[in-house]
Parts: sequence; C-alpha cells; structure tokens
Amino acid sequence: MELIQLGHGSGGRLMHQLIRDYFAPAFDMRSLNDSALLDPLPQGRIALTTDSYVVSPLFFPGGDIGLLSICGTVNDLAVSGAKPLYLTAGFIIEEGFPISDLRRILASMTATAQACGVKVIAGDTKVVERGKADGIFINTAGVGVLEDGVDISPLNIRPGDKIILSGPIGRHGISVMAERNGITFDPPVQSDVFPLNGLTAHMLKTTKKVHVMRDPTRGGVATTLKELAHESGLCLTIHEGMIPVPPGVRGACELLGLDPLYIANEGLLIAIVDQADAEPLLAAMKEHQAAGQAAIIGEVTESPERMVLLKTDIGGIRIIDMLSGDQLPRIC
Amino acid sequence: MELIQLGHGSGGRLMHQLIRDYFAPAFDMRSLNDSALLDPLPQGRIALTTDSYVVSPLFFPGGDIGLLSICGTVNDLAVSGAKPLYLTAGFIIEEGFPISDLRRILASMTATAQACGVKVIAGDTKVVERGKADGIFINTAGVGVLEDGVDISPLNIRPGDKIILSGPIGRHGISVMAERNGITFDPPVQSDVFPLNGLTAHMLKTTKKVHVMRDPTRGGVATTLKELAHESGLCLTIHEGMIPVPPGVRGACELLGLDPLYIANEGLLIAIVDQADAEPLLAAMKEHQAAGQAAIIGEVTESPERMVLLKTDIGGIRIIDMLSGDQLPRIC
Repeated sequence: MELIQLGHGSGGRLMHQLIRDYFAPAFDMRSLNDSALLDPLPQGRIALTTDSYVVSPLFFPGGDIGLLSICGTVNDLAVSGAKPLYLTAGFIIEEGFPISDLRRILASMTATAQACGVKVIAGDTKVVERGKADGIFINTAGVGVLEDGVDISPLNIRPGDKIILSGPIGRHGISVMAERNGITFDPPVQSDVFPLNGLTAHMLKTTKKVHVMRDPTRGGVATTLKELAHESGLCLTIHEGMIPVPPGVRGACELLGLDPLYIANEGLLIAIVDQADAEPLLAAMKEHQAAGQAAIIGEVTESPERMVLLKTDIGGIRIIDMLSGDQLPRIC
Repeated sequence: MELIQLGHGSGGRLMHQLIRDYFAPAFDMRSLNDSALLDPLPQGRIALTTDSYVVSPLFFPGGDIGLLSICGTVNDLAVSGAKPLYLTAGFIIEEGFPISDLRRILASMTATAQACGVKVIAGDTKVVERGKADGIFINTAGVGVLEDGVDISPLNIRPGDKIILSGPIGRHGISVMAERNGITFDPPVQSDVFPLNGLTAHMLKTTKKVHVMRDPTRGGVATTLKELAHESGLCLTIHEGMIPVPPGVRGACELLGLDPLYIANEGLLIAIVDQADAEPLLAAMKEHQAAGQAAIIGEVTESPERMVLLKTDIGGIRIIDMLSGDQLPRIC
C-alpha cells in the first residue's frame, strides 16, 4: 500500500509528483505555484468564506470528508445569497496516510465540485509526522457573487415573518457518530450532506426578498435559531410537531440522550421570510430535490427579545438555548 | 492557565465566546457566520491563493506561525503581481492548547495584516482531541487584484534575461531548525519572514515588464529555479559567488551537511527580467527595506533545456536538481 511520506510535503520532487499525479487531475488548478487567476466575475458583490474540515471518521454513511469539504463551503456561500464560483483547497496530511484514501477523497471532491458548478483552482499540501494529525484535514475557502437586490441578513427579520426548514434534521451528526462508535441504528441513518446552491438559486429566483438563510451545521437547528434571535433582537418560536425528525435520528437520540435540535446537518437550511412570501417560497422549495420535505416550522414575534421558544406537542413551552460545551465533537 | 477545550469547536456557547473575545477583536470579521462581503475591488484581474501553515515549533527566532500565516499568503499573491487585499483564516487547534499562545499568535496576525494592508474578513475554528494535531495549524486563503499590464509567468522568460535575488538565503529554514532542535548558532540566525507586497508594488511601479517573480519557500532557491527552468523550457545559470549566504546560515549548513540553496525562505523573492531592465530594477529594489542586499545572481540561456546550473567559485559547474525527499520537514 502506498503511503504519504514527509517528503510529499517538502516542496521537492515527491511533492511535485503528488500534485502532478493526484491533485492536478482532480481539480482545475490554474497554477502549481503562488496564485490562480479568476475569469472575469459576473456583476455583483463578492463574498468570501472559509471552513476547515476535521470530521472523524473520514468516511461515513452518506459521505466523506471530501464531499463535506466542498459542500460545507459552497453552502456557506449559498445561504449568504451568493452563487459559489471558485474554491481553494488546503490539505494537511499525516505521514503514513494511505494514498488510496487520498484518491477516494479527491474523487469525491472532484465529483462534488462538478455537481455544484464550482472550480477548485488553487491548492496546498502539507505533511506532518505520524501522530501529529489525524489522517487528513482539509480547508476550503470559497468565492461567490451576489446578484444585485439580494440582501441576506438577520437584521432583515421582522415580527410576523415565517421560519421555513428545508428538510428533516439530525442526519449528518447521527451518521458520523454511529460510524465513529460502530453503532448501527435501525433504520440506518445517512448523512444529509448535499450542496445547497441549486436550492438557494431556485429560492432567490422565486423571490429576492428572502430575509435570511442559514445552514444549521455545528450546534444544529437550535444553535442557528438562537444566533438569529440574538442578532435580530427578536423572538423565534418553533413548533415541535412541525419539525421533521427521521425515525432513525429520533431513535438514536432517545437511546443516547441527545436532542435532535442540536445535532449537526450538512444539507439543510433555515429561511426566514415575510408571511406573504412564505407559502409561495415553500411551494417552490418543495419542487427542488434538496427540499422535498420543506416545512414552515414557526414564526417571529417581537418579544420575548432574543429568545427561541419551542412549543411542544403536549402544549408546553421550552426555552431553547445554545449548548455550553460540546455534544458531538469533530462532526465536520 | 486557560486551555482550549473541545467545546470551543462545537458551534455552541464556548465557541461564540472564543470568537467574541479573541478572534473578532483580532480581525476585521464581517460576519460571524457563513460568508463575508468584500468592498468593491479595484479594476483588474482577481487572484486567489491558499496555504496551510504547520510550522514546528510555533515560535522561532524572528517570527511565529501567525506572522508566517499572513506573510506566506500575502507573498504568494505579491509574487503573482497582485495587490493582496483580503484574507480568510482557518484554525485547527488541539485540545489543551494554551489560550495565552493563541492570543500571542492572533496579535502577531493582526499586526502583520495591518502592516501589509490586508484585511482578514472571514474565519473558522475547529478543535480536535489531544494528540490529534500538534498545537495549532492555520490556513489562510487570499484574494488580490492584478493591475492591467502586469503579466507574471514563467512563459515570459527569454534567453538573455537576468535573474535577480532580493536578499540573503536560508535564514527561515535554519532559524526554525535551530529552534526545533535547541541548537544555538553563532552568529544566531533569525527567520527572514517578511511581507513582500510592498517590495513587489515598488518593483512593478519601476517596470511592469517583470517576466516572473516567485518566492523560494519550501525547497529553497534551488527548487524554485528548477521549477522555472522546467516551466520555461530554458536554462537558468547562477553564480555561487553572487548569492548572499549569511555567515550563520553558512556555518549551520556546513555543520549539518545541508545545502543553503535548498533551505526555505519566507521573505525573499527571485525575479527574472529582460537584461535591459535588470540594473534599473535592481537599483529600485535596493531602495526597499525588504531587498537592501538584492543582487543579480545569474542569467537565462537557451540550452541545456530545463536545466539549472551553478557556476562555483572555483570555476566548476554543478547541476542543480530538486530534492527527492525532505531536508527539513514542517518548515512552514
């Protein structure tokens, strides 16, 4: 089995071979050195983002770190209202990492970038000694462009707005956790990792007046709603019965004492829109493969300020807060 | 002593506190979520680049990983002929990392970004378990703009061109290696890590007809010249006596059996220009603090194709090739 050696990160012959044999064919690298030039961008404001991916294990039901590293950054741009166009990819690889696994990850990145319509045009590889990393870590940074008239910000949220969720919750976190711990759930849970830029483009074609979109990754739906409540100064109320929780996620959470509202998602978005736009937008979202089970899950009120409330099925009200520590580390 | 916990990477309250207390004040973060919007860019082509930094140790004579993570990416843009404008920063931190060290690194990044005139506008933090990383790894990606008329490419190199080196070689690699191994050299060697965008802007003001610039980091001057010979299809000849090697670097290399031509630099550039432009450009470079010891070190000929030749002080000729493996791992 071919393994990554320290020399693969040296700048010398081994590194050039690695780039020539694996990285250059996988991506649209415009330069093996220094920086890459973009084609002229479409009219609009430019958005920039970055994320590092340290998920453990690297391969999990429904995805892998390669797929995740493209979708995560594409989704950050997409929920900002931008059309993702270009990515960079930085790899930190542990000495002894199997080159066959690297090839599998790169193939996954290539296929996902093509599916998203983005180009990976600049990269970097570093190798650290055995025991100084955990297999492979990937950073991607992304450039996208916002069309004029798109304005995605929590400051746009108004009392009376509706909260839309694009699909069922908790699948990514549970799938990674199950794989990590060698647990099998029945029914099995697959990660929801999926690029959202097709969905967001479709949504913004329906109405540019989407007030805010955000993808509830680390910390789950609860944390994202709490951030939005905090940043808007308003109260977000959601209804337990309206939130789709897949049976496998529900079962796993009951067994392990986890709350699905805090479990990470990687192909899900929350949108907040004016009441008048909610039903047409929901109908449009449901036409898209990434949001067949989209639902209106709640609404915005003026008070209590900066709060997230959950109306339970039995008529109670629960205050939703951020988690203090960590439910599931290294989920993305 | 305050230490990084796994919960600092969770997306929850601890992570928000970390961002609020340390990352947000250090940078020009435009959004704590998703992506950041750039101000309208100046006219020109847009360049994009990325690098991850895994240097060990994190603090070394003349610099630290924070300084390096800004300079390295700024320099990649600068030697492409671009004016660096925006950076992203992605942190992968090992559980148990001292927050005091994180503060020191962030302070270094802030000061360097200000000195370079770049804004760090988007970031990300992941935390991995103790033993799954080595303190801290940093990725930065950078966006810059190239003025019209600037065309930096090895394809521009022509027979007769002169090769200019901006200063003395080998200081970064030797300083890191000495610190890592607890060796003290007399005279001591400080890293040359320094932002080159001021120098490159000054050079391009003197003449836009710089054929190529490149910063000889990993693999040193030898590897960079070999890349340029390969990419241009021409022969690059350099003269041993014209290459400034600081006494500390020379002593360390003699002691350890290393070749200074292969040692990493982080504040150095190689420029190749038409013979007629070489002396005026050299004079302009010497006015700049980053290139007081700049020198013409060689010239380009048609053949032997794709070769780098070193004319030694005693009249011999040595063929310079890329290193196969690794002289000094984790130098940047």
